[in-house]
Amino acid sequence: MGVLGLGRMGTALAGALLGAGHDVSVWNRSPHKAGPLLDRGARLAATPAEAASAGVVLSCLSTYDTQWPALEAAALSGRTLVNLTSGTPEQARDVSKWAASEGVGYVDGVIMAVPQGIGTPAAQILYSGSEPTFAAQREVLEVLGAPVFLGEDAGLAALYDLALLGMMWSTMAGYLHALALVGTEGVTPEQFEPLASAWHSAVGGFLPGIGSQVASGDYATEVSSLDINAAGLGLLVETSRAQGIGTAVPAVLRELFDRAVAAGHGSHAIASVIEEIR
Amino acid sequence: MGVLGLGRMGTALAGALLGAGHDVSVWNRSPHKAGPLLDRGARLAATPAEAASAGVVLSCLSTYDTQWPALEAAALSGRTLVNLTSGTPEQARDVSKWAASEGVGYVDGVIMAVPQGIGTPAAQILYSGSEPTFAAQREVLEVLGAPVFLGEDAGLAALYDLALLGMMWSTMAGYLHALALVGTEGVTPEQFEPLASAWHSAVGGFLPGIGSQVASGDYATEVSSLDINAAGLGLLVETSRAQGIGTAVPAVLRELFDRAVAAGHGSHAIASVIEEIR
Repeated sequence: MGVLGLGRMGTALAGALLGAGHDVSVWNRSPHKAGPLLDRGARLAATPAEAASAGVVLSCLSTYDTQWPALEAAALSGRTLVNLTSGTPEQARDVSKWAASEGVGYVDGVIMAVPQGIGTPAAQILYSGSEPTFAAQREVLEVLGAPVFLGEDAGLAALYDLALLGMMWSTMAGYLHALALVGTEGVTPEQFEPLASAWHSAVGGFLPGIGSQVASGDYATEVSSLDINAAGLGLLVETSRAQGIGTAVPAVLRELFDRAVAAGHGSHAIASVIEEIR
Repeated sequence: MGVLGLGRMGTALAGALLGAGHDVSVWNRSPHKAGPLLDRGARLAATPAEAASAGVVLSCLSTYDTQWPALEAAALSGRTLVNLTSGTPEQARDVSKWAASEGVGYVDGVIMAVPQGIGTPAAQILYSGSEPTFAAQREVLEVLGAPVFLGEDAGLAALYDLALLGMMWSTMAGYLHALALVGTEGVTPEQFEPLASAWHSAVGGFLPGIGSQVASGDYATEVSSLDINAAGLGLLVETSRAQGIGTAVPAVLRELFDRAVAAGHGSHAIASVIEEIR
């Protein structure tokens, strides 16, 4: 198995493979990053092609711009490429087309975990692209984390990745805003976090219902109507301003919710806001 | 016990009290809403003062604008007011000052649950204001949900409420954006929701660490640096635009993250973004 790219994530992937007893060749533009892996039995490849001679290559570079030269230098024809470099669906599809024209078995993957989680079943890794290639590599991919195959469109994994990361960024920004807001009255993160974590779990319980409402387009609610929540966002913006903190995040949510109210969704569930996004 | 306001939440509160065997007087501007509660044994109060004659009043009106006339009509002197109307910390403090001047025992509360959850221990209700008043009412408040006392500043409960609801609105907007994004490639909510729910739980695991970093101001990370996440937000905005959906939410997050990178936090953890909010 060859690994291209030894950032935090590439290093964790190579480490998990070594831990499971695989032969691993590693390549990185700055070879000194390979040190700890070489101590654990990895071989240093002087070029991408040398890493690819193993037959199966995991590529985990920082961007597609740094990945393209490495792929083109790797002489992958007749081999298998598992592309774990982060990017857009379009970028993944471009590599998929190139791989098809070069006779390379191709799977794109995205890692929904931090490097420290690699090698545990808690690390979900989503794949899309060639199903036979995925099936052939499934066993070794299970060493890295729990694999989920999404479909033959090579862009799907990147699409899910951005969608899920977007959820994370929204959630974290909301949490940081909350910490800043309660902090204005001297409430510490230590005091606030247990309530916030319990509340985060409770909010998770709403996601299936929101999904069902979006799927059916039936936004009737007996729980909480959009106009009440839009008014609440107004109070959050007003209070954030009064307490002297930034209002960028709640203000944009308020505009979005208000647009949905103006479009006639005031008595509907919050899920109806999707009509103003798509 | 008197209950002012019979919207969804007020009705649920009165219902839980009846279920626990309490005498309940209910008042609402439109008395017809009381019907189902009267069938369960509640008494209809013709005025707020009649409801208040019970000695302890729960007020759960839609806004402070509708609440003020009811409070002023309720002849609360020497009685106890538990104010569950949603508003800002400033609005709660104004009622607290008025209550002190009128000789009314005062506690402000916010309900972190949907009406359907009232009467179960899963319904957390946060209180602030007079601690002796809270202690005296604690037993009856436990009928409504799990009470948490935050402190003597009457505005604290409203501050926590807005902070926690802000987390919810951010999380839901992020989820709706994600559903819209994967939907552009025909992925249904039914297909996406299980992954999204698992991911939401995983993201919850990051909250304690973010809290510690904010508390210490030490944003060093071995997990994922802000510049990588800011670049990812750029890809999310670009891909959302390419797929033809709105970009308002990720675009404002991107601006916020980019500002934090520009302020020198590129190699720091995402938690450092709070420096650009507060």
